[in-house]
Amino acid sequence: MVDNHIYQGNELGIDPRRVVWRRCMDMNDRQLRFIVDGLGGKANGVPREDGFDITVASEVMAVFCLATDLEDLKNRLSRIVVAYTYDGRPVTAGDLKAHGAMAALLKDAFKPNLVQTLEGTPAFVHGGPFANIAHGCNSVIATKMAMKLADYVVTEAGFGADLGAEKFLDIKCRVAGIKPNAVVIVASVRALKYNGGVPKEKLSEENLEALKKGIPNLMKHIENITQKFGLPAVVAVNRFPSDTEAELNLIKEECKAKGVKAVISEVWAKGGEGGIDLAEEVLRLIEEGKNNYKPLYPLEMGIAEKIETIAKEIYGADGVDFTAAAKKEIETIEKLGFRDVPVCIAKTQYSLSDNPALLGRPTGFRITVRNVRISAGAGFAVALTGEIMTMPGLPKRPAAENIDVDSNGRISGLF
Amino acid sequence: MVDNHIYQGNELGIDPRRVVWRRCMDMNDRQLRFIVDGLGGKANGVPREDGFDITVASEVMAVFCLATDLEDLKNRLSRIVVAYTYDGRPVTAGDLKAHGAMAALLKDAFKPNLVQTLEGTPAFVHGGPFANIAHGCNSVIATKMAMKLADYVVTEAGFGADLGAEKFLDIKCRVAGIKPNAVVIVASVRALKYNGGVPKEKLSEENLEALKKGIPNLMKHIENITQKFGLPAVVAVNRFPSDTEAELNLIKEECKAKGVKAVISEVWAKGGEGGIDLAEEVLRLIEEGKNNYKPLYPLEMGIAEKIETIAKEIYGADGVDFTAAAKKEIETIEKLGFRDVPVCIAKTQYSLSDNPALLGRPTGFRITVRNVRISAGAGFAVALTGEIMTMPGLPKRPAAENIDVDSNGRISGLF
Amino acid sequence: MVDNHIYQGNELGIDPRRVVWRRCMDMNDRQLRFIVDGLGGKANGVPREDGFDITVASEVMAVFCLATDLEDLKNRLSRIVVAYTYDGRPVTAGDLKAHGAMAALLKDAFKPNLVQTLEGTPAFVHGGPFANIAHGCNSVIATKMAMKLADYVVTEAGFGADLGAEKFLDIKCRVAGIKPNAVVIVASVRALKYNGGVPKEKLSEENLEALKKGIPNLMKHIENITQKFGLPAVVAVNRFPSDTEAELNLIKEECKAKGVKAVISEVWAKGGEGGIDLAEEVLRLIEEGKNNYKPLYPLEMGIAEKIETIAKEIYGADGVDFTAAAKKEIETIEKLGFRDVPVCIAKTQYSLSDNPALLGRPTGFRITVRNVRISAGAGFAVALTGEIMTMPGLPKRPAAENIDVDSNGRISGLF
Amino acid sequence: MVDNHIYQGNELGIDPRRVVWRRCMDMNDRQLRFIVDGLGGKANGVPREDGFDITVASEVMAVFCLATDLEDLKNRLSRIVVAYTYDGRPVTAGDLKAHGAMAALLKDAFKPNLVQTLEGTPAFVHGGPFANIAHGCNSVIATKMAMKLADYVVTEAGFGADLGAEKFLDIKCRVAGIKPNAVVIVASVRALKYNGGVPKEKLSEENLEALKKGIPNLMKHIENITQKFGLPAVVAVNRFPSDTEAELNLIKEECKAKGVKAVISEVWAKGGEGGIDLAEEVLRLIEEGKNNYKPLYPLEMGIAEKIETIAKEIYGADGVDFTAAAKKEIETIEKLGFRDVPVCIAKTQYSLSDNPALLGRPTGFRITVRNVRISAGAGFAVALTGEIMTMPGLPKRPAAENIDVDSNGRISGLF
Repeated sequence: MVDNHIYQGNELGIDPRRVVWRRCMDMNDRQLRFIVDGLGGKANGVPREDGFDITVASEVMAVFCLATDLEDLKNRLSRIVVAYTYDGRPVTAGDLKAHGAMAALLKDAFKPNLVQTLEGTPAFVHGGPFANIAHGCNSVIATKMAMKLADYVVTEAGFGADLGAEKFLDIKCRVAGIKPNAVVIVASVRALKYNGGVPKEKLSEENLEALKKGIPNLMKHIENITQKFGLPAVVAVNRFPSDTEAELNLIKEECKAKGVKAVISEVWAKGGEGGIDLAEEVLRLIEEGKNNYKPLYPLEMGIAEKIETIAKEIYGADGVDFTAAAKKEIETIEKLGFRDVPVCIAKTQYSLSDNPALLGRPTGFRITVRNVRISAGAGFAVALTGEIMTMPGLPKRPAAENIDVDSNGRISGLF
Repeated sequence: MVDNHIYQGNELGIDPRRVVWRRCMDMNDRQLRFIVDGLGGKANGVPREDGFDITVASEVMAVFCLATDLEDLKNRLSRIVVAYTYDGRPVTAGDLKAHGAMAALLKDAFKPNLVQTLEGTPAFVHGGPFANIAHGCNSVIATKMAMKLADYVVTEAGFGADLGAEKFLDIKCRVAGIKPNAVVIVASVRALKYNGGVPKEKLSEENLEALKKGIPNLMKHIENITQKFGLPAVVAVNRFPSDTEAELNLIKEECKAKGVKAVISEVWAKGGEGGIDLAEEVLRLIEEGKNNYKPLYPLEMGIAEKIETIAKEIYGADGVDFTAAAKKEIETIEKLGFRDVPVCIAKTQYSLSDNPALLGRPTGFRITVRNVRISAGAGFAVALTGEIMTMPGLPKRPAAENIDVDSNGRISGLF
Repeated sequence: MVDNHIYQGNELGIDPRRVVWRRCMDMNDRQLRFIVDGLGGKANGVPREDGFDITVASEVMAVFCLATDLEDLKNRLSRIVVAYTYDGRPVTAGDLKAHGAMAALLKDAFKPNLVQTLEGTPAFVHGGPFANIAHGCNSVIATKMAMKLADYVVTEAGFGADLGAEKFLDIKCRVAGIKPNAVVIVASVRALKYNGGVPKEKLSEENLEALKKGIPNLMKHIENITQKFGLPAVVAVNRFPSDTEAELNLIKEECKAKGVKAVISEVWAKGGEGGIDLAEEVLRLIEEGKNNYKPLYPLEMGIAEKIETIAKEIYGADGVDFTAAAKKEIETIEKLGFRDVPVCIAKTQYSLSDNPALLGRPTGFRITVRNVRISAGAGFAVALTGEIMTMPGLPKRPAAENIDVDSNGRISGLF
Repeated sequence: MVDNHIYQGNELGIDPRRVVWRRCMDMNDRQLRFIVDGLGGKANGVPREDGFDITVASEVMAVFCLATDLEDLKNRLSRIVVAYTYDGRPVTAGDLKAHGAMAALLKDAFKPNLVQTLEGTPAFVHGGPFANIAHGCNSVIATKMAMKLADYVVTEAGFGADLGAEKFLDIKCRVAGIKPNAVVIVASVRALKYNGGVPKEKLSEENLEALKKGIPNLMKHIENITQKFGLPAVVAVNRFPSDTEAELNLIKEECKAKGVKAVISEVWAKGGEGGIDLAEEVLRLIEEGKNNYKPLYPLEMGIAEKIETIAKEIYGADGVDFTAAAKKEIETIEKLGFRDVPVCIAKTQYSLSDNPALLGRPTGFRITVRNVRISAGAGFAVALTGEIMTMPGLPKRPAAENIDVDSNGRISGLF
């Protein structure tokens, strides 16, 4: 509809070089990352630089997961900025009268889909926005439905307490008006040894010294949850066959010293049985009720200040460097009326910093914000650090090569 | 998978300028007709000219409709030519090991879907290949399933006896090994007056002279069915409110003189009731059994000769002009082993010739074949006359602008 | 200046898809035939489809060769149509205020450059427009200067009496107000045998029968000059070592029967000495003064009619088929006020028809005009038949590979 | 020749995505900065991303200015890296056999062209490579010819002692084997006030305080010349009408305190007369002979270390940050055998740092090297800081609009 609008006379004055909306496709299609379309002369569109994203990278997915009902979904869709005019004004999906059809298409998908675990526990798998350019958690509507149906609801916020938890607590909880009772911080001996400098191929060997060097990373995540967000926490140590008792005990001790209990989780090996200790500690924390949850920053802060707050408080950075482009964009975004929105930082999940090579609990570093974009429908500003890939590619040997179906319709090679 | 193969080292030596496979999207997206993709440097694919087709224009749709079972579907998919190498050899979906996954994706869609008319008559709506670059009829598997389930099966072959019927009788029936018992040729007073030179806005006025001038068009269609294909036929005149008795009678008389009965069909106005006369004539023809059906041409003929046969016998052309490109391509295709396939002519449906302005029953004209392509999976060669659009565009005011959904999930504006 | 105008706000409303002016480069650069430029975002132009021509294919070259003085040059440059607006109005170089600078750049080149032959005869080599999309003759100003300086002026109009001579007589002579006194039609035994069906590798063998079959081609050229344009003519037969007396005599006889003298020219082997007979016949024709020269068609004819006149009278065609695009463009061009201009037909030089394979003196053929373009600065309409290449490519082994310069500055490998 | 090589079978295995050679045009043509060429199918090249540079940005210009004779020119041209193969090997102009033809084309241009000033002083204006991606000084051959012909030779090395002088002293002098006798550092009251924080529109007002704040910038340039390169120096203060005596005196005093004489130059207003004081101080410095010239760094240093040396010693930076791309490229370049070459840093001329906003004599900053490229023909590695524009654009109102030529050939509007 954006390109058709331009083609059919461009009443709104959209600058073809500033269409920010990208088509989506649920394929890993590297070839479509950067394209020029509208070629072939006057009858076939208007030439411009363009590209495709994978579906989960679309702002529609973020909107879908933050919408509280169909009406809110439609309103959010209508606010999505799809382009800018020659004189710099934003053009929204609503300006193109696209939001009604978009909502109609999503109407059935918007209903949470109930599934179950191998042990029969009910679960919702509903919505999956990228955890970098978007907030990374499942739909508000599924979470709230679960809260109506069950006594206890567990939800996931992936990619570490600096990414998933921060966005869950500062964006989703704020939008949904919900308040968690307790937090499970997931850790593993292997990941902490990796953060202590052990190369991947040696992670199966006991190494207490490296573990000790890696544990400050965990401590920072604990501090973030308990001190920055004011929430009670338990550390769940996902047990691997190669873990030694000495290693597990070291983590337990260090956590205890920090005032938090570390529980060994054996869910992977034993199913629900392996998670009983963890569940009991979670229940204890909830009953104890020591909960002073508040978001990290007030929405009234300026966008740059919010980014700096997250960088300093959660990542442990000395400060933030904004490129000229980022500064200019923040100014533009705030002028357009998007000052009082939460920020969503697109950052590597491999380090507390924006440099994947800085392991453990780095200090003395600064974050560089390369650019800032407004997701007006989702209702947040995205701060980009590093390059973010929003369309994956296939590997040398695509999985499709192994997939087959026999003459009876039996599919093979999926896993 | 094609682009990924090139990107990952291009073991098969695919020439990026000769990838003939186009991505498909079920959207009317003019902007994607002609694109350059793979831009953005070494990590983002390989630059090449490309474009999207609408789904029904994909050879997959033609394959799907001609396949007799899952095994045959997979085999046909594997034969689809997706590109040519630097030294001119064809590369197939099978060479890329894509056919298994393609068949797996189609497995459920491949099962014919039973629906019903407003009066409860069972019907299959299953598969819809373009009637120009493909053969235009529904799936072989649905037709055969219907033949197992019912006493009488009626199937549609759109776009006139020169296009739909010719392809149905020369391609689909031959592939499926089926033989029709009788043919219903659909006509209308309005269409015949149009072929007699009446402009669209005056078609509601009685005009026996123009009707007389247009009727030779219908006579040619009758000749094609009865004389060229040896099948018994009835003409169904779709009655419109503006038709006069004099007009309807004129058609009846002319058909009678030709030895074929013309029956007035009022199905549009009266439902099944309005088709009883037609049905009875069809039954009569079947019982009478005067059926000498044979395809128009033997498969052993050369491709150019087959095209000329259709043009002369069915269209009434004096002959066929092949462009240099078409001649070269026919030579290439025949060398590659695709000489003994039926041909599928992509031609306008507005005229028996390849010029939409030649109405009635034109004579003294030649057909120009611009190019020829092989659809090796579908199993036919496509002869292109004129420009064929395989990706539509949106109108000035897209239907999507009217579509909405209210807070209860009720969708409006679809029709 | 066109692209900069669009980039800087596009005051004139130029449609980037309808910029018809192409950049030029005096390089054989295949890679630049079809490009997309203006990529790289908002600061780097406006994306559009574009391409380069070689310098001689530029309308500037045609303008340069038809201009009668600096003032006329500047006026013609200002009239060149470089683009069309969104609402279909032409935009000229003058609208962009580019003509003054263009004329200033050409000021020195515009002075004819006097050179000499190996025997010391003065000659001008000045201007060389393509003989297909342009008129193919040297500059009016050089021809007129030569006429001031010498008693007799010989000029070349390449590519046969159907192309070069027709354009010289209908376009250049008309613009320059000059009138030739006599015409030399160049022929060769080999070319006539080729037109009689002999393959290239057998042209050195005597073949009177083939020669006889090819001679009607020459007769048509003679008729064109003497009957259609009313000019006295002599045929110069360029002698090759493989020509036999019998062959040469056959040509002489056939010409004599046609009322025209054929003279053997041995200029290639003997220099000026070898051209004395030819020169004397030319002088005789001039003195005889049987000259009824007039252009083939009056300028007041419609563009389509002019094209048909040339096709029928000069090529011997039955008529002309215009594509829908050509018809529409003629209509547009005439509406824009370019009805009374001569036409310049871009056609193959290998046949009197537009099909390079039709040798000899073909009959019973029609010409297809694919499209028509206005060269408003040059002052003619170009009718395109077939594909015209306006940017050559390098061969497998470019001449540049052999070129070198030694340490003393001596260049080698140029020839 | 690069694209033709790929098109004609690509014997060398050039990766079209890694052609680093760009076409050049002596036009300010923004639209050609980023293009996709080779479009139009198999017969028209190979699609790839490409772009044009302005001629002075071409490595040919740098090569031309550093070559010591025709033989050396040809050798340098042959070493230019124009592309990389699919497996990462560099492809040179020599590999394509292009260097001979390139040298032949440059043969005449390579002879220094003697011009004169308004007062009749002889001068060479010969070669002008960009002062960012290249070394920015005129040709070695012209400088050496001048040294043969005159008693004293003055040469220019533009863009400040951090850019022009550094490159002149570390690259050109080293290549040419020449050694300057004295250095004139050019300064102006206005530029120093600007470096002291005065906005451009207030530079005409006396402001001793700002001048004092800006003078440390000049001091750094003096230190660079005298302490880092060991050369005697004089400061030439280009007098402007708005300069006050107090301001000129302040500069003189500060320079005197630094041990360097500042001389007022009035060449702009008075011609040679206005430069006598300056000339005398230069002569004095030369006769005094206090000259300990040496390049800043030895060639044996690694490329990264050389960059760091220039950044710390000449710019006053704390250090250098290399992006991942730059690090990788340095590694590649060194592996390819280009470790022992001088480096040429592409940096803004507005600041001693790489941030144009840091005026005066900034401290506490780091330089970011975005990427590194090898100019193998010129014989240096280029370190890129910030974005470098190698193709300018036209202004809103191009100068060409004012240029005209009258009917007598008189050109107007050039200045």
